[in-house]
Amino acid sequence: MGSLGSYSGNGYSISNETIGKVITCKAAVAYGPGEPLVVEEIRVDPPQKMEVRVRILFTSICHTDLSFWQGENEEQRMYPRILGHEASGVVESVGEGVTDIETGDHVVPIFNGECLECVHCKSEKTNLCEKFRVNPMKSTMWSDGKCRFSTKEGKPIYHFLNTSTFTEYTVLDSACVVKIDQNAPLQKMTLLSCGVSTGLGAVWNTANVQAGATVAVFGLGAVGLAVVEGARARGASRIIGVDINTEKRIKGEKIGITDFINPKDLDKPLHEKIRELTEGGVHYSFECAGNLDVLREAFLSTHDGWGFTVILGIHPTPRLLPLHPMELFDGRRIVGSVFGDFKGKSQLPYFASQCMKGEVKLDEFITHEMPFSKINESFKLLIDGKSLRCLLHL
Amino acid sequence: MGSLGSYSGNGYSISNETIGKVITCKAAVAYGPGEPLVVEEIRVDPPQKMEVRVRILFTSICHTDLSFWQGENEEQRMYPRILGHEASGVVESVGEGVTDIETGDHVVPIFNGECLECVHCKSEKTNLCEKFRVNPMKSTMWSDGKCRFSTKEGKPIYHFLNTSTFTEYTVLDSACVVKIDQNAPLQKMTLLSCGVSTGLGAVWNTANVQAGATVAVFGLGAVGLAVVEGARARGASRIIGVDINTEKRIKGEKIGITDFINPKDLDKPLHEKIRELTEGGVHYSFECAGNLDVLREAFLSTHDGWGFTVILGIHPTPRLLPLHPMELFDGRRIVGSVFGDFKGKSQLPYFASQCMKGEVKLDEFITHEMPFSKINESFKLLIDGKSLRCLLHL
Repeated sequence: MGSLGSYSGNGYSISNETIGKVITCKAAVAYGPGEPLVVEEIRVDPPQKMEVRVRILFTSICHTDLSFWQGENEEQRMYPRILGHEASGVVESVGEGVTDIETGDHVVPIFNGECLECVHCKSEKTNLCEKFRVNPMKSTMWSDGKCRFSTKEGKPIYHFLNTSTFTEYTVLDSACVVKIDQNAPLQKMTLLSCGVSTGLGAVWNTANVQAGATVAVFGLGAVGLAVVEGARARGASRIIGVDINTEKRIKGEKIGITDFINPKDLDKPLHEKIRELTEGGVHYSFECAGNLDVLREAFLSTHDGWGFTVILGIHPTPRLLPLHPMELFDGRRIVGSVFGDFKGKSQLPYFASQCMKGEVKLDEFITHEMPFSKINESFKLLIDGKSLRCLLHL
Repeated sequence: MGSLGSYSGNGYSISNETIGKVITCKAAVAYGPGEPLVVEEIRVDPPQKMEVRVRILFTSICHTDLSFWQGENEEQRMYPRILGHEASGVVESVGEGVTDIETGDHVVPIFNGECLECVHCKSEKTNLCEKFRVNPMKSTMWSDGKCRFSTKEGKPIYHFLNTSTFTEYTVLDSACVVKIDQNAPLQKMTLLSCGVSTGLGAVWNTANVQAGATVAVFGLGAVGLAVVEGARARGASRIIGVDINTEKRIKGEKIGITDFINPKDLDKPLHEKIRELTEGGVHYSFECAGNLDVLREAFLSTHDGWGFTVILGIHPTPRLLPLHPMELFDGRRIVGSVFGDFKGKSQLPYFASQCMKGEVKLDEFITHEMPFSKINESFKLLIDGKSLRCLLHL
């Protein structure tokens, strides 16, 4: 296993001994849909050209990991594989050509990379890099189509979402590594790797919610609560939280919801209730539940003429959008948002500084912490709706 | 029949004799789905509070009239009814409270009204007036729920789309009457009443196409060609016209298409061909065909990351949007546009002046002219795809 020095001042010191060598370390490997992850020793190759090898220090589990672990989509089943995409760590070494990142840098991996050079990265309108955008079907490295992970017996282990963070060491394309301030608290920065950026960014970048606006959030998991935090930070006048689990109300109110609705308690359609509360509908709604019936309610809960719905949930079923084309003539709009429309490498460092200054509050999101070896317990907490983010220490 | 003075200088003079009285005049009345319109004498009541009675001088037929005449949607069948919504004329008299319009004014009716006072009219984000937005189910006047038209036997005749222009005299809510420059050529101004404003406005207001952008237009009827004209006027670098009728190419090229595609001539999906022609897809696509399979092609023909599709076609079938929610995560957007997002009373006068200055060219849109009595022939021309706009003289 690669050695990790102790925390020293503003950084985690890293030894030079492993540079250029194969590292043997612990990882949690998925061998089949729904099967408990196996924490075992694997081998991690050195980074190739334009790649970075990172010592992961903290990782957490998001619903996308859960969905892949359960194998919800048959086409996306590839084993053995190392899941995980929300994390933070320290750079162990970099491959040829990497100039913006060096050994010892504090970094967060991003599943939706930014090469900075393609026509997409050069456009202001999108954060979907031509090469390194999120792609659930991709399971090998971009440069050579090979895996940098292998079992002790030499069998390749597949990559996941450009990141694979359920391992002490991972290899990423440099486009998927964001360097952040050495003074930023690395534990909390883990949240910026996926869930919090996705939710906050949907409010700030995709919808561009302004002070005084009304907002409804469907699903109060980590992403939904990040939407709440983003709306609060922007000065939304009313933030309606919706969840079928009434326990979510407490956390929601701590972060900033002004109203809570459990649709199960209603004797009328959810969107009618929300329209009643908001003189015809909210300005913005955010679907964070991954359910198409909820999506339709989110769409109808906005005000005609200017309502704006952002889809954040993942919809793995083959069902189409439950909207009639003529409904779009009522002036409601609906869009998808990937990684909160943040361009990771360009924009996350500033977002991190906003978090450090307290403009964004991250305290409520990490509800549990445990050692990496207990990763299967952490999955169970998320499945049972008991945790928002459980930080695993590697 | 109410008398209409001869054309005098910049205006059409109107006699005062009919003010306050019931007018007997000619109208083309629909008695049942697909049945030829009956041109006969009807009675038109004086305008009530906030209403305007207009001597229609020119009217033309749009596909929406055709759809209602054919009774495509059973719920919307109401007879007898006076169809028609694209027209121009002169104000005969105004009801109590109307202060912005007076006898003799040149006007165009708008099916999507603007009361100037509701929360929608006061918002910059929408042109959907709370009271007078387009509503195909509405068949009577707003103030009292009654008809201003009746047969000679006194039976009420229903209104249509806030306008009913297939008649020598009609009564409209003042919110649905736009006063235009007395010097504007009234024949051509008829086009601003629906089709041309809808197409141009979709390009200028809804999509806000900029110089250099690439555009694809699906369906080269009057609305589609108005989209072409709007894109040309904005300096689009490439305008791809799509139609299954190759004859449409000639008119399309006259107005400004740079490429023409008949999907029947292709051996690959239409969107693949368009992506090949445009380095990954157009910036903007406009669906003007009222067909959901075409709509899907229009959506997929845009570039991922920033593609923007505007729906202009009417989709009367119960079929839902043929899009999977995850497809919205590729950064393509799709929206509906009503009346080109023009606020009729506020914005059409300036649009008319742009047309008068030649910034927008209207010459190609009126392909036929005939007397009002031949209205059924005019319907046939449209059904056969032979006319863009046939101007009926009343």
